[in-house]
Amino acid sequence: MKTIRIKAPATSANFVCGFDIIGFAVESPGDEVELRFNAAKTIRITEITGSDSLSSNANENCAAYVLQLFCQKINTRQGLDIRLHKGVPIGSGLGSSAAGSMGVLYAANILFDSPLTDMELVSLAMQGEAFISGALHADNVAPCLLGGITLIPVQDPLQIISCPVPPDLGFVIALPDFELPTKEARKVLPETIALKTAVKQWGNVAGLVASLFRKDTEQLAMFLRDHIIEPARAALIPGFYQVQRAALEAGAFSCSISGGGPSLVAMTRHPSASGEIADAMKNAFTGAGLSCRCYVTRISKKGCERVDT
Amino acid sequence: MKTIRIKAPATSANFVCGFDIIGFAVESPGDEVELRFNAAKTIRITEITGSDSLSSNANENCAAYVLQLFCQKINTRQGLDIRLHKGVPIGSGLGSSAAGSMGVLYAANILFDSPLTDMELVSLAMQGEAFISGALHADNVAPCLLGGITLIPVQDPLQIISCPVPPDLGFVIALPDFELPTKEARKVLPETIALKTAVKQWGNVAGLVASLFRKDTEQLAMFLRDHIIEPARAALIPGFYQVQRAALEAGAFSCSISGGGPSLVAMTRHPSASGEIADAMKNAFTGAGLSCRCYVTRISKKGCERVDT
Repeated sequence: MKTIRIKAPATSANFVCGFDIIGFAVESPGDEVELRFNAAKTIRITEITGSDSLSSNANENCAAYVLQLFCQKINTRQGLDIRLHKGVPIGSGLGSSAAGSMGVLYAANILFDSPLTDMELVSLAMQGEAFISGALHADNVAPCLLGGITLIPVQDPLQIISCPVPPDLGFVIALPDFELPTKEARKVLPETIALKTAVKQWGNVAGLVASLFRKDTEQLAMFLRDHIIEPARAALIPGFYQVQRAALEAGAFSCSISGGGPSLVAMTRHPSASGEIADAMKNAFTGAGLSCRCYVTRISKKGCERVDT
Repeated sequence: MKTIRIKAPATSANFVCGFDIIGFAVESPGDEVELRFNAAKTIRITEITGSDSLSSNANENCAAYVLQLFCQKINTRQGLDIRLHKGVPIGSGLGSSAAGSMGVLYAANILFDSPLTDMELVSLAMQGEAFISGALHADNVAPCLLGGITLIPVQDPLQIISCPVPPDLGFVIALPDFELPTKEARKVLPETIALKTAVKQWGNVAGLVASLFRKDTEQLAMFLRDHIIEPARAALIPGFYQVQRAALEAGAFSCSISGGGPSLVAMTRHPSASGEIADAMKNAFTGAGLSCRCYVTRISKKGCERVDT
């Protein structure tokens, strides 16, 4: 029986000021997904490795949920077996649910000979995000599929724009040892904000996008400020400001919450300094009483990728 | 005595969703400014044509005010005579004060052999805007000086980014026959907005900027929605929604308030249709009981320009 194996990258959503509209894919960590037909006419999760907490009940698992939507959409009752190796930690702010669902959808689209477009795959995966977090957002699933830095300026009708990826940017992701479900991270957001603050934020968004297209990472740094989401969520992450300061002092030009947290992502124009930045962030989290693991990585231009051939 | 003569273009700020951060210069209308040294050691306005309502008292006139700031900055007590031919109607939403002040500053910088940078000229002109409207904003003065479509993502420290100008865009500006001072237009803005709405707006801003850099005017149209400022200001302009609908039905792909209004600016990918769009907008304003004049124009890539040589 043919088995499709997919590597689906971790992603960092809410790119600093670009809450809910800009995300990017990284080279590591990532999930591995295997998908194949079964004779049982049902969708099953036959194995999950790399995570103890994820349900393998097909009615509770996000990847299985979006695969059901996929099958409904292409009108098939074909049974499918999913094997899921979680490399992206759950509740980390690194698009764990997006990697699982997008990997499964990408695999399914290959198994069934590409019945759906990229936009349709993203739309299905967004429903998985809503299933998990209660909010429909595409800034993990779109970069997970397409790779690189991805804008989702409008969700309905869905618009996706890939931005140029600046060369030579290094990333350090520091993940402290606790889970922060996206649902919880959404609860602390303000319902209303001052118009003045909103104008600052969309000014930074405009500058960020323009700097990416102009490939000007020096200017980019000017716009990596978040006046709204970061102040609201910082309190959910013990030591946030200390870790941020440590990263900046060690040579990062930006350090902010990845997705809904608790991981923080730091950027540097000197990837050779990434090790030092990682050490500084780890030490600062330790100072706040949290152990933490770090990923030293780059932007992945690939997105989901078939690895069985 | 050497006289410098400058043409300073009208500008349209608050480019649809880009409130306070994106503006562009148009080929017409424009102000003409003449500046020369006098022996009186004072700044005088010797003539104003094209407007009955503008004060020629140097302490009340915005162009004279910024010229005083210029002289203080370069530390001169040289007297100067200003002649101002207003082509940009006052209180129109077309950057009338910006054209006058930027024209004078640009002329002064030539007269004194370029002591100030573009950034310094924009900063001075912004103080003129605050003098007039009570709010420091650069989305008229920056495009007036530099031409084209200009982003001002951050005001402090001032950041200016010129965007690529899509070829073959036509513009129709419809100016109904009443003045709407920027100060009044600012009063109706909400102090706070829903975070959800703000996210929609910065999504559109991101899409707008990306589309400009990708030179994709078809996609651009998708993002020309303003969920915040337009709904608040529409009521200040009788017939707003009728005129907007008329412009869209006549072939424009966007029609929104220029600056603080009351002029409306419509955009088309078919400049040959501009006459028809202008007629439709004029008729709709007439239907709302307002006479109106229309400018059929294009984006000016030049900004302020010396015309005496």
